[in-house]
Amino acid sequence: MYNLRSVSEVLPYISYGGDYNPEQWSEDVWLEDARLMKKAGVNLVSVGIFSWGVIERQEGEFDFKWLDKIMEILHEHGVGVSLATATASTPAWLTQKYPDSVAIDKNGVPYSFGSRQHYSPNSPDYIRLVKVLVRRLAERYKQHPALKMWHINNEYACHLSECYSENTVVAFRKWLKERYQTIEELNERWGTNFWSQRYNDFEEITLLPNPPTFANPGQELDYKRFMDDVFLNLFIIEKEILREVTPDVPIFTNFMYQFKPLNYFKWAKELDVVTWDSYPDPRRGIPVSHAMTHDLMRSLKQGQPFLLMEQVTSQVNWMDINVIKPPGVMRLLSYSTIARGGDGILFFQWRQSRAGAEKFHGAMVPHSNDENSRIFREVQQLGLELKRLDSIVGARTKAKVAIVFDWENWWAVELGCKPHNQLNYVERVQVYYQEFYQRNIAVDFVRAGDDLSAYDLVIAPMLYMIKPGEGENLETFVQNGGTLIVSFFSGVADENDRIYLGGYPAPLRKLLGICVEEFDPYPKDKTNTLLFNSQQASCSMWCDVIRLEGAEVLAVFGENWYKGKPAVTQHSFGKGEAIYIGTEPERGYLADLLMDLASHKGIEAPIDTPPNVEVTQREKNDKKNLFIMNHNEEEVTLKLPNGNQFVNLLDDEVISQQVTVKGIDVVILQSL
Amino acid sequence: MYNLRSVSEVLPYISYGGDYNPEQWSEDVWLEDARLMKKAGVNLVSVGIFSWGVIERQEGEFDFKWLDKIMEILHEHGVGVSLATATASTPAWLTQKYPDSVAIDKNGVPYSFGSRQHYSPNSPDYIRLVKVLVRRLAERYKQHPALKMWHINNEYACHLSECYSENTVVAFRKWLKERYQTIEELNERWGTNFWSQRYNDFEEITLLPNPPTFANPGQELDYKRFMDDVFLNLFIIEKEILREVTPDVPIFTNFMYQFKPLNYFKWAKELDVVTWDSYPDPRRGIPVSHAMTHDLMRSLKQGQPFLLMEQVTSQVNWMDINVIKPPGVMRLLSYSTIARGGDGILFFQWRQSRAGAEKFHGAMVPHSNDENSRIFREVQQLGLELKRLDSIVGARTKAKVAIVFDWENWWAVELGCKPHNQLNYVERVQVYYQEFYQRNIAVDFVRAGDDLSAYDLVIAPMLYMIKPGEGENLETFVQNGGTLIVSFFSGVADENDRIYLGGYPAPLRKLLGICVEEFDPYPKDKTNTLLFNSQQASCSMWCDVIRLEGAEVLAVFGENWYKGKPAVTQHSFGKGEAIYIGTEPERGYLADLLMDLASHKGIEAPIDTPPNVEVTQREKNDKKNLFIMNHNEEEVTLKLPNGNQFVNLLDDEVISQQVTVKGIDVVILQSL
Amino acid sequence: MYNLRSVSEVLPYISYGGDYNPEQWSEDVWLEDARLMKKAGVNLVSVGIFSWGVIERQEGEFDFKWLDKIMEILHEHGVGVSLATATASTPAWLTQKYPDSVAIDKNGVPYSFGSRQHYSPNSPDYIRLVKVLVRRLAERYKQHPALKMWHINNEYACHLSECYSENTVVAFRKWLKERYQTIEELNERWGTNFWSQRYNDFEEITLLPNPPTFANPGQELDYKRFMDDVFLNLFIIEKEILREVTPDVPIFTNFMYQFKPLNYFKWAKELDVVTWDSYPDPRRGIPVSHAMTHDLMRSLKQGQPFLLMEQVTSQVNWMDINVIKPPGVMRLLSYSTIARGGDGILFFQWRQSRAGAEKFHGAMVPHSNDENSRIFREVQQLGLELKRLDSIVGARTKAKVAIVFDWENWWAVELGCKPHNQLNYVERVQVYYQEFYQRNIAVDFVRAGDDLSAYDLVIAPMLYMIKPGEGENLETFVQNGGTLIVSFFSGVADENDRIYLGGYPAPLRKLLGICVEEFDPYPKDKTNTLLFNSQQASCSMWCDVIRLEGAEVLAVFGENWYKGKPAVTQHSFGKGEAIYIGTEPERGYLADLLMDLASHKGIEAPIDTPPNVEVTQREKNDKKNLFIMNHNEEEVTLKLPNGNQFVNLLDDEVISQQVTVKGIDVVILQSL
Repeated sequence: MYNLRSVSEVLPYISYGGDYNPEQWSEDVWLEDARLMKKAGVNLVSVGIFSWGVIERQEGEFDFKWLDKIMEILHEHGVGVSLATATASTPAWLTQKYPDSVAIDKNGVPYSFGSRQHYSPNSPDYIRLVKVLVRRLAERYKQHPALKMWHINNEYACHLSECYSENTVVAFRKWLKERYQTIEELNERWGTNFWSQRYNDFEEITLLPNPPTFANPGQELDYKRFMDDVFLNLFIIEKEILREVTPDVPIFTNFMYQFKPLNYFKWAKELDVVTWDSYPDPRRGIPVSHAMTHDLMRSLKQGQPFLLMEQVTSQVNWMDINVIKPPGVMRLLSYSTIARGGDGILFFQWRQSRAGAEKFHGAMVPHSNDENSRIFREVQQLGLELKRLDSIVGARTKAKVAIVFDWENWWAVELGCKPHNQLNYVERVQVYYQEFYQRNIAVDFVRAGDDLSAYDLVIAPMLYMIKPGEGENLETFVQNGGTLIVSFFSGVADENDRIYLGGYPAPLRKLLGICVEEFDPYPKDKTNTLLFNSQQASCSMWCDVIRLEGAEVLAVFGENWYKGKPAVTQHSFGKGEAIYIGTEPERGYLADLLMDLASHKGIEAPIDTPPNVEVTQREKNDKKNLFIMNHNEEEVTLKLPNGNQFVNLLDDEVISQQVTVKGIDVVILQSL
Repeated sequence: MYNLRSVSEVLPYISYGGDYNPEQWSEDVWLEDARLMKKAGVNLVSVGIFSWGVIERQEGEFDFKWLDKIMEILHEHGVGVSLATATASTPAWLTQKYPDSVAIDKNGVPYSFGSRQHYSPNSPDYIRLVKVLVRRLAERYKQHPALKMWHINNEYACHLSECYSENTVVAFRKWLKERYQTIEELNERWGTNFWSQRYNDFEEITLLPNPPTFANPGQELDYKRFMDDVFLNLFIIEKEILREVTPDVPIFTNFMYQFKPLNYFKWAKELDVVTWDSYPDPRRGIPVSHAMTHDLMRSLKQGQPFLLMEQVTSQVNWMDINVIKPPGVMRLLSYSTIARGGDGILFFQWRQSRAGAEKFHGAMVPHSNDENSRIFREVQQLGLELKRLDSIVGARTKAKVAIVFDWENWWAVELGCKPHNQLNYVERVQVYYQEFYQRNIAVDFVRAGDDLSAYDLVIAPMLYMIKPGEGENLETFVQNGGTLIVSFFSGVADENDRIYLGGYPAPLRKLLGICVEEFDPYPKDKTNTLLFNSQQASCSMWCDVIRLEGAEVLAVFGENWYKGKPAVTQHSFGKGEAIYIGTEPERGYLADLLMDLASHKGIEAPIDTPPNVEVTQREKNDKKNLFIMNHNEEEVTLKLPNGNQFVNLLDDEVISQQVTVKGIDVVILQSL
Repeated sequence: MYNLRSVSEVLPYISYGGDYNPEQWSEDVWLEDARLMKKAGVNLVSVGIFSWGVIERQEGEFDFKWLDKIMEILHEHGVGVSLATATASTPAWLTQKYPDSVAIDKNGVPYSFGSRQHYSPNSPDYIRLVKVLVRRLAERYKQHPALKMWHINNEYACHLSECYSENTVVAFRKWLKERYQTIEELNERWGTNFWSQRYNDFEEITLLPNPPTFANPGQELDYKRFMDDVFLNLFIIEKEILREVTPDVPIFTNFMYQFKPLNYFKWAKELDVVTWDSYPDPRRGIPVSHAMTHDLMRSLKQGQPFLLMEQVTSQVNWMDINVIKPPGVMRLLSYSTIARGGDGILFFQWRQSRAGAEKFHGAMVPHSNDENSRIFREVQQLGLELKRLDSIVGARTKAKVAIVFDWENWWAVELGCKPHNQLNYVERVQVYYQEFYQRNIAVDFVRAGDDLSAYDLVIAPMLYMIKPGEGENLETFVQNGGTLIVSFFSGVADENDRIYLGGYPAPLRKLLGICVEEFDPYPKDKTNTLLFNSQQASCSMWCDVIRLEGAEVLAVFGENWYKGKPAVTQHSFGKGEAIYIGTEPERGYLADLLMDLASHKGIEAPIDTPPNVEVTQREKNDKKNLFIMNHNEEEVTLKLPNGNQFVNLLDDEVISQQVTVKGIDVVILQSL
């Protein structure tokens, strides 16, 4: 038996390529593809993601000939294959033969064939046929030299994260029974004595596609947990077969941004490598959220580098208005990906489709097949440059700041019936993240129950739900000298969305030294002011009415009937400090507060920069790799750390003292 | 046998308390509740509204032990009980055992269990099981000294006022057959020769959940009438059982604001007391609509005082942004309720829930259980103050102005396919109401067919539908000296939404002395002008092209092709006057017109006030009770009627000449 | 056997009248109707459109007595009948007896009876019963002297252009099999190897009511084609019966504006005369789109005059706010209809309904039945005037400019997943049309594959789809000396919405002498500039990145990274010129460009006018008929062609040199 190989062992270079769908083209195009791949420096392609229908033509009738040929051509041209299990969409024959394989929507209507991903994740027939297919694929290609990795399914739950089929009800009851053991425990956790919702038996539980009004939030939350588990279980089913047949080959599925239905922290444990698909809207300017997602993806497996499995060369097809990435932007975003922990850059897709819903989605080879097109020239330039970065593969990012990001909290805090129902969890997190991003201070993402000992500063924005042990873990972190920041609407509910009684935020009250007496949610156009050190700043979104229980006041409110009451507080606890921010301050105030705290801990950016210059550092074997991305149109010149010498990896020049970076350009410096 | 006792006999004090849901809490909390109720002056709580699931654990298995205990504890602490019949939401076992008990939506999809009120009002099984439950409850507690009133169901039709089940079709056909006797009569009333809609038989009639385009308006209107009757019948079924078992106990259900699906004028006849649930949005400033609903509720039973069955201490949970009532506002709104005819103030709910969809709905006892919290202190202050107002219980309001408010007209005028489809009936009524409200002139609400002899001034805003006898009744009112005001789009259709032919507004044409030749509906941004006495004012929403037939012109239009034609007219009829307003004038013009007419009739406010000071008067036993609510932040000083002496009921001080009322405060003066 | 008579033979005068629904009224009204029709100059009414329920009371039980009587009364009063086949809405008994006759929506929910048009066009029972009814009607009235034309069904597909019933699936599979013969051909055309959509058999194909995400565009496009064919087939089924029984009577159905679901060019071939229903919103000012639709309707049968089958006297009932047509406007719009090729003016409807969804839809006789009402007086004036225009019947419009308007292109270009998903095809066409409209230059509409030899200038706005032969046809047109203008996003896809590979716009690339390398779709608020001859203009919506391949540059872009690259190009090809406009220029630029090209070809308006004066010319028997419609409030005086004499048809005055037209008035001059 072989042992599992790490991804950087399998791919000891920056991976470069894209989704490759040869089944959409005739064989004469395949050789042309291989020639162009070589020209563009491609070394890895994803094959077979939506190929079930052409691999298994009827139940049990497999056609691997075309795939054999493709694998061979690719291998001959030095292109590795990340082979998909082809289970992302079920074929027509399967859909028709097994009606229970189809997912059911909130109106009880089956989803239609003719799009993609219409299968029910709780269909026994789907699962049975997946097992057969995956084993056949694995057996066929287990020895193939082109096989580098297994790509399971595709963007799980992307279009369909809920299902209301009979099979789903049955599975939900089973899941609940395993979780709660007795119906009385479930009644207690869901608070079913409210609105006469009490159950006598697990068999009485149904799904909630069509409630006349607000549904039981405990049930809603558990349904989200359940569906997440259902999809993860599909992944595990495939993974176990592949691991058995090819124990050495790394296995993954591709994630998407901060995708609410799937708790990627939980998923990441089951993957050998995190990969994700990134589609920032070019209209939204400097991509803070793009960077934030990169940092999250890197954090999912505690800093292990990820692969960017999909991005687009220029424009996508699924937005309302799909604008172009101007010259240089795709390259700059690609380097920004590597700068934040990416060890590979792949595109959807290699060759632009002629037909189907994605034919206007950009690709590495456009409809014109023109090697002189701007698109292909940019693809080729990047592919050739990346060959210079082998030494970076596997390098790590060191962060002293961590922000809590928790999927279960996200689900709970955005359920309805809250004091404020226009809060957006990801936005609340980004409010804190962006200040560090703009100042090039590295940030990891963590959960409140994780080991926090590596960090000096931990921020928990709107941590509404505190799960067992999390309050204690945060206390330990501060006790040992850490600085913790908690923002409004935190510490309110337990893991079943039941209130912690006795004064908010009960599980953090001792740590923060305060009691929140009332919540005052603010409509969009309303603001209050913060008063501090004879200065004032604006705040909005939410104001807490706070009573001190040991904490000191950093700022008070300047308006409304709670004028003069605490808005921002600080509490010494053990060797550390716990700060509470009972509102959403304007950026200037927040930036000053955060940077004060960071600088107090000695946390700083690798080098100083003017605005819109992104800098990160990855380390490996005692070498520092400094990425400098200039998002401005104009060139900038930056001072380098005194006395250090660097080699510019893209041109091998050795420099020190200072470096000039052109507009929309990047420099990568490796310490000597 | 006992005779039915009146509510003021049963509750000879201002009722004070809230919804109490002990089933959500363990027994140790119950005694703490009783202690705090006593401290807060609570004398009445609603129990059991959503308790079906904990009372009847399986079909026919009743558990009354917990309720026995609660009744006893409450009684021992001097708290009366308004006992609910628990039929507002069906338990899980019932839903599963009787699938026909579930309501069906427009897509044919059953509503889900796990929220509330998912039952079909036309389900024979629901009705059968309701009868069993209600009788068991009544028999069990008929002698209990804590039992003050019966609270049937809860906010009927709140989330679900339509149902498309098979049982509903059957019931609708039966209802139609009773109403129209023959299918030819129905065809005639619904105008079914239009669009080939003719029926041969009542059995051919179906519901209209999914019409390809505009539905038959006669059928739409009758479906609304039918569903209203269906819900009222549910109430009557429960009431008859309760009356039989406890003939002396008053019976009611709780209303909600101007709730379109239920014709509360019709319902009120079946109730022993009107009660309602009031949730004004604090963001909407001075609560005109809050006052208007109070006046409507008082009018439903011809001036008999009502109880406010629910309000919130500070913030609710079901709006998008649930803002706080600042200190004092809850108290002021509570007095405004009493000022307009309320004899009780209850809250939803007593203790804030720990779990479920309403856990962030405010309560008398907050999550913190803190007796020193602002919320509890305000609750306690009000409870203790109200004990000073026993002498007001049962006092009446005398109004000389009445505004016509008619549910069936509302239904008809807001059906589609009208000249103007953005008219809102309640808003049109409020346009007239608000001028009297702002000047503290008492207003009753009536229907056009009611006895109007008590009034000097009657206003019928947008009375599109005129039912048999109503035209004649209005004529009689004016004939006898009354002043009638009718606004645009009135007198157009009969009770089946068929046009009165021969020139609008046919049934009022003689009375008003005009003929409306054309309707010109105005989009939002468009205005015309009114010209009168060399002055001009703006008008909007709608312009009628009017031909005079005996009336005089009060104002003409200043623009458009009907420039110079009548816009506002006045017609002498018998001893009175009939005014027609063929547009929606700006507020200044309308206020001048209305106040001129009122002052001509000697109608005036009890005392003069600056803006935002609300004044009302309730009378009993020759005593006048003057309520003065100051909604301003600043204090005001008001002149009192010359030569009168008053006692301030809240501090027993005797005053005359003038009175000072602090900001956000109230004074209640009783004449000596 | 008789031969088919032409409409101008059957109706050798301007037809005038409306929809007449006597079944909604008692018999005493019928004689009143006939008297008023005579008074108003009515000579044609549409009878029986929604009469199925009163004609066939139960299956096979026919009642023609009332219709016999109506036909007789009308004939006696000199009113011809356009007799409807009454199949536009199925009766209650039919709906109940044949559940499969009901259409099914996207949620699988049957449409409800009680509105109209709820039948499924693929129901065998509907079709069978239609055949019986139509034959009975035809046999009954084939000899009746009042019968002028057959009006089949009504506004096909108006509310319901899609159906998801089982019968529809079956019919769709049959249609596909006929179209593609083999499943492999279908797989190839739809590109089913994308997203695993491959079919093994036609029986596997389903409809796409509920896709989880974007559906296969090839299937979506074919479903639109199929449903269009289904409705057209219904028309043909009725037509064949009528033609057999009454071979001499013209047959039609009534169209509606540019109605997306039905390809009226295809339909027009099956009709003996084009008729349509016109409802311009009076709020939208000068009716460019009204004129554009008239020109389209005239073009559908290559210039044969059409009938306006429905318009409203003043206001409709189905918009949100249904505003009035001020005095004179209905008359002016009616003449504008005749001016653009109409030989008849009919209204919906004759007498305003008392009940039903359309009771507030305006009519020739209002609810008041008042012969002195403005509405009836305008109806009467127009009816009497039109009697002066017999000599115009059949006259033709001569246009040298043609704009391509193609339904299949419309369907394809507005399917989702495009670079820009807020493009509106009709708006893009109108951008070009309006410049000619405003300058009174006659325009025909054509398809790209039509014979274009009659035109000097052809414009193809956003002709995304090029069907077989169309590229060659456009080449031939230019080759022979024509001037062709093509705008952005043209020549991209084939008839199955598959991309033409090898560089856009592949089938027009040689003709236009360019290659479009990239598409840059612009959001609403974004603009670029055009630079030309040291001038500049603004442009928006879309910018193409263009490479020249023989064309010359007329303008370049002034901004963005493709600054200086071609935006508008011109290519000499054969004896003609092909212009490409790779953006949407501001109106001034576009007008200059178009008028330059037109004037170069000697294309000009009949006479010069100030703004908002509409002029057209219809010719017959060497006589020119000049229509001058003054949409301004003020009168205008216009110079007439030198040396020509005209008779004013509305007052018989002979004039020359110049003519004065009052505000909101018309003059019709016939050359002498």
